Amino acid sequence: MALDTVRKPDALAEAMAETARLVEAQLDALLPVPETAEVRLIEAMRYAVLNGGKRLRAFLVMEVAKLFSVNRTCAARVGASVEMLHAYSLVHDDLPAMDDDDLRRGQPSCHKKFDEATAILAGDALQTRAFEVLAEEDTHADSEARIELVLALALAAGMRGMVGGQMIDMESEGKDLTGAEITRLQALKTGRLIQYAAEAGAILGRAPAAQRHAIMAYGRDLGAAFQIYDDVLDETASAEEMGKTAGKDAAAGKATMVRILGLDRARSQAETLAEQACAHLDSFGERADLLRALARFTVTRKS
Amino acid sequence: MALDTVRKPDALAEAMAETARLVEAQLDALLPVPETAEVRLIEAMRYAVLNGGKRLRAFLVMEVAKLFSVNRTCAARVGASVEMLHAYSLVHDDLPAMDDDDLRRGQPSCHKKFDEATAILAGDALQTRAFEVLAEEDTHADSEARIELVLALALAAGMRGMVGGQMIDMESEGKDLTGAEITRLQALKTGRLIQYAAEAGAILGRAPAAQRHAIMAYGRDLGAAFQIYDDVLDETASAEEMGKTAGKDAAAGKATMVRILGLDRARSQAETLAEQACAHLDSFGERADLLRALARFTVTRKS
Repeated sequence: MALDTVRKPDALAEAMAETARLVEAQLDALLPVPETAEVRLIEAMRYAVLNGGKRLRAFLVMEVAKLFSVNRTCAARVGASVEMLHAYSLVHDDLPAMDDDDLRRGQPSCHKKFDEATAILAGDALQTRAFEVLAEEDTHADSEARIELVLALALAAGMRGMVGGQMIDMESEGKDLTGAEITRLQALKTGRLIQYAAEAGAILGRAPAAQRHAIMAYGRDLGAAFQIYDDVLDETASAEEMGKTAGKDAAAGKATMVRILGLDRARSQAETLAEQACAHLDSFGERADLLRALARFTVTRKS
Repeated sequence: MALDTVRKPDALAEAMAETARLVEAQLDALLPVPETAEVRLIEAMRYAVLNGGKRLRAFLVMEVAKLFSVNRTCAARVGASVEMLHAYSLVHDDLPAMDDDDLRRGQPSCHKKFDEATAILAGDALQTRAFEVLAEEDTHADSEARIELVLALALAAGMRGMVGGQMIDMESEGKDLTGAEITRLQALKTGRLIQYAAEAGAILGRAPAAQRHAIMAYGRDLGAAFQIYDDVLDETASAEEMGKTAGKDAAAGKATMVRILGLDRARSQAETLAEQACAHLDSFGERADLLRALARFTVTRKS
């Protein structure tokens, strides 16, 4: 079984911590604090994105890019870009008109720390900056690769991706969705951006079509495993472990796979998806071990 | 004087109406309504952008593109993209946490017609779609041109452009800004996107550097004239003419050039800037007459 062949967890933890350092150095450089009146905007952007997250999406970009020997700094820029996009979605998700969440990773959410208007604008500007960083020449010498990154991010983030999924999620509150509908919702809302992160590494590496498809299939299954396991955590973890309000989705009557399958079968489905994700990596041999370890981690993490 | 050489106003009105039809056909095609649950999101996006606006920014793209014989459909796509970006900024600006405006062009603003959460997401997705359209192959055969469009839009729209300007604007409420500070604020908040629209036409046309600079200078002065004249209108026009709450900026204690210069001198400064804008077009001869007419229109319009 693919999941047995992963390296010891320490190797993954170490690699993720190293990636996080690299990506945070990039984020720091990409969001310089100006001397002018809009300093509060940049401070809110930095607060939202430089928050000690796990950097799972950036790690995915960088580990996939490594398979294709991509320059580390270029990969870290794209990793920083996807973390900005992810941070923007969290800032807007937490707003009073949306999930109305006061806590994010154990800290006041952006609109609590600053104010609502600043949080709206900071999210807006983080999205813009994410696209800008992809388009900048430092990201890749080849304009074709940069335009592919922009297109892939837009597809993953927009109305037929993440934001479309958020909309369905809101509309579904209190309704009984089928398992298939929840799967589609989650694939859009969370899965597409995780899949993009894997794809971005392959785009950076100008991977041949077959390898790019294998990486995208890995990303798709990993994203699905991630979201189902998130629902499991939402039911089982404490608020302290989660760094956010636990049990909230269930309380809001949101559609989750745990409600449909029950806790045990949801957990087991997440594990199956993680194994399936690993199976797509066979052609990469042991160079993909950390990506396999990441799949394992995704369905065993505590938060 | 350049402003004397414009064609009769009918020619401008006709050309703007024709552009609006083309751009709205593009917008309609670029935002198809799906069969699925996120239909409400797309409906809100369409409501926000297909609202019978003047399409000044799209007109700028298309008229500049015409100077360089750009394919009309490609130019209309970029025009549609800048209108989406503009619409997103208006939707978020109108939110209760921002300007809290119930009316937009005489109709309920997006969060009044739908709800706040939908308006936030619709704005988010309009921004994403604006970038996506620029990156799509149909926009320009040359990936270099597409990446330049993405970069220029990101610069104009982000933390050092439109959103940065909105932040300064919010921060300035009740404060006494100097004329120089207001000029910078307005250049960021409104001017940069108008300048981008002109620049985008030149990028589409792969204009030589000297012509591109002339177009950008025209766009910069036109944007400045536009914003100062907007302040004049905010003081003088009726709510009915404006299609939004009039006198609102002044009531909110916002910094405007009218407060600094008084009505007459503000109007005259807008006119001077419009003439200055036209002066940058000399090398294009009478092919730029509609762009000159647009500058004239900018400082004589009623709304």
